[in-house]
Amino acid sequence: MRLTALAGGTGAAKLLRGLVASIPPRDLTVIGNTGDDTDVWGLHVSPDLDTVTYALAGLLDIERGWGRAGETFRCRDAMSALGVDVWFNLGDQDLATHLWRTAALRAGCTLSDVTAELTRRLGAQALVLPMSDDPVRTRVQTPESWLAFQEYFVRERARPKVVDVEYSAADRARPAPGVLGALRDADVVVVCPSNPVTSIGPILAVPGIYEALDVTRARIVAVSPIIGGAAVSGPAGALMRARGLPLSPAGVAMAYSPWLDTLLVHDTDRDRVPEVEALGVRAVVTNILMTDRAGEAALARALLEAAR
Amino acid sequence: MRLTALAGGTGAAKLLRGLVASIPPRDLTVIGNTGDDTDVWGLHVSPDLDTVTYALAGLLDIERGWGRAGETFRCRDAMSALGVDVWFNLGDQDLATHLWRTAALRAGCTLSDVTAELTRRLGAQALVLPMSDDPVRTRVQTPESWLAFQEYFVRERARPKVVDVEYSAADRARPAPGVLGALRDADVVVVCPSNPVTSIGPILAVPGIYEALDVTRARIVAVSPIIGGAAVSGPAGALMRARGLPLSPAGVAMAYSPWLDTLLVHDTDRDRVPEVEALGVRAVVTNILMTDRAGEAALARALLEAAR
Repeated sequence: MRLTALAGGTGAAKLLRGLVASIPPRDLTVIGNTGDDTDVWGLHVSPDLDTVTYALAGLLDIERGWGRAGETFRCRDAMSALGVDVWFNLGDQDLATHLWRTAALRAGCTLSDVTAELTRRLGAQALVLPMSDDPVRTRVQTPESWLAFQEYFVRERARPKVVDVEYSAADRARPAPGVLGALRDADVVVVCPSNPVTSIGPILAVPGIYEALDVTRARIVAVSPIIGGAAVSGPAGALMRARGLPLSPAGVAMAYSPWLDTLLVHDTDRDRVPEVEALGVRAVVTNILMTDRAGEAALARALLEAAR
Repeated sequence: MRLTALAGGTGAAKLLRGLVASIPPRDLTVIGNTGDDTDVWGLHVSPDLDTVTYALAGLLDIERGWGRAGETFRCRDAMSALGVDVWFNLGDQDLATHLWRTAALRAGCTLSDVTAELTRRLGAQALVLPMSDDPVRTRVQTPESWLAFQEYFVRERARPKVVDVEYSAADRARPAPGVLGALRDADVVVVCPSNPVTSIGPILAVPGIYEALDVTRARIVAVSPIIGGAAVSGPAGALMRARGLPLSPAGVAMAYSPWLDTLLVHDTDRDRVPEVEALGVRAVVTNILMTDRAGEAALARALLEAAR
């Protein structure tokens, strides 16, 4: 069974780690969000690709949900001592990834080439693809200004009110090599429990990807990143509201409804099933909170079961 | 009394540290060798400028003679785990210097602007100038091939036979802003105990610098990097031989004789004084081994005395 997953960062990383406990990692292709890629200290940082790759390679700091386990921050501290306003943390080991990526991009490699090679060298066996080799940048409009996603999320700690969200240059982006084929040839497409607006939204904004989901014969199964009326983590609430989506499992179903077959919702959202199913999406009720490795694996098994 | 010093790396760092114990650091201008600048992991590294700046800022690892005290190498280890052939060690704190420099150079700053700003931010009070803002690269010819200096010195550990040395692109380089003025206006010019061929040689190869030394009214005092028939440290021996210079204090005097006033030679080289003075260079015999901070300060005082 071939799986293709659309993935953001932390939530996706947990589910993907659960999936490779159930299926051979080589049967998994991950299409990662690059809308919050950013330049830090002159280096090209791909936060979501790295979180997913580190998770699949067993290198992710599980507590923190980003970066590498056992990380140190000596370079960051030295940058700060140089007077740099350090608001994006790059760990000392993590820096190697960004240095390697940046040097390879400067030498003319594509982001997908670099990602495939980094994934292999870090020891992840699944195939990780960026959604596009072209730069797409998620920008968040606040009452004061437009911010790059990481400025909004990390520097401003998601505190400003969100007026609008855009995927800058998405209209000119092409899917990375392998992306459309992975959606076409999959048996199951998984939409990870990531922010529908700023993690999955940028992927869907790349011309051709939405259409590929519309025509694929794969079963498409999503895990809700919303439980009750709140995001499991992160700023999904404010961003979904800014996009006119209700903050509920039905809001998630609405974002994906033209092509979504099944949405996994949390046990406590049993009473919201009719709202989801009114959108033509089957709802499966299960425990979607992944509080430990066993929970990740159990949710992955429930997902694979729901996809059958 | 205004001092201008021509400096390589480790040996220079010790003497300069001694000098700023005797004179106000703001009266010292250092003209640093950039002939062994190199690209490491996509970053612009200026080994000699950094060694001097770290020494003047009290940050240098004194035992090692390069890099920062209390350094860690987690990023380097992660690079190595990525399969990179890591032969040039960049420490985690040191990386901040190179990231900052590289980003500023890419933004269009000159190396002298960057160096002045880094020096200030790292807390060194002397003025450190690169010999040139233009790229000059020392290359070492071995029987097999031409090597960049760091390839010869660090990667090959100075083991290959040296056939020739060149300062690539030196003929097109201009002295960095402030360099010629610092030589013209100094009361004393100090030639640090650095390798005459690959540390001081590249500085002298920048058109205008040699001439400025010829015409300056400053007293010019050098400290020999050679004791007896051997270099105090490093590969000066093989390099001096390749340039046809005898491996002795007189060989050092020969390299600088058209404009050198005084050469400090080691106590044990008393019998070599006539050889040096036959070249028109006054020899002063003193303890030039700087084995500790007190030794550095004592040599600096002896130098200032010899310059009077």
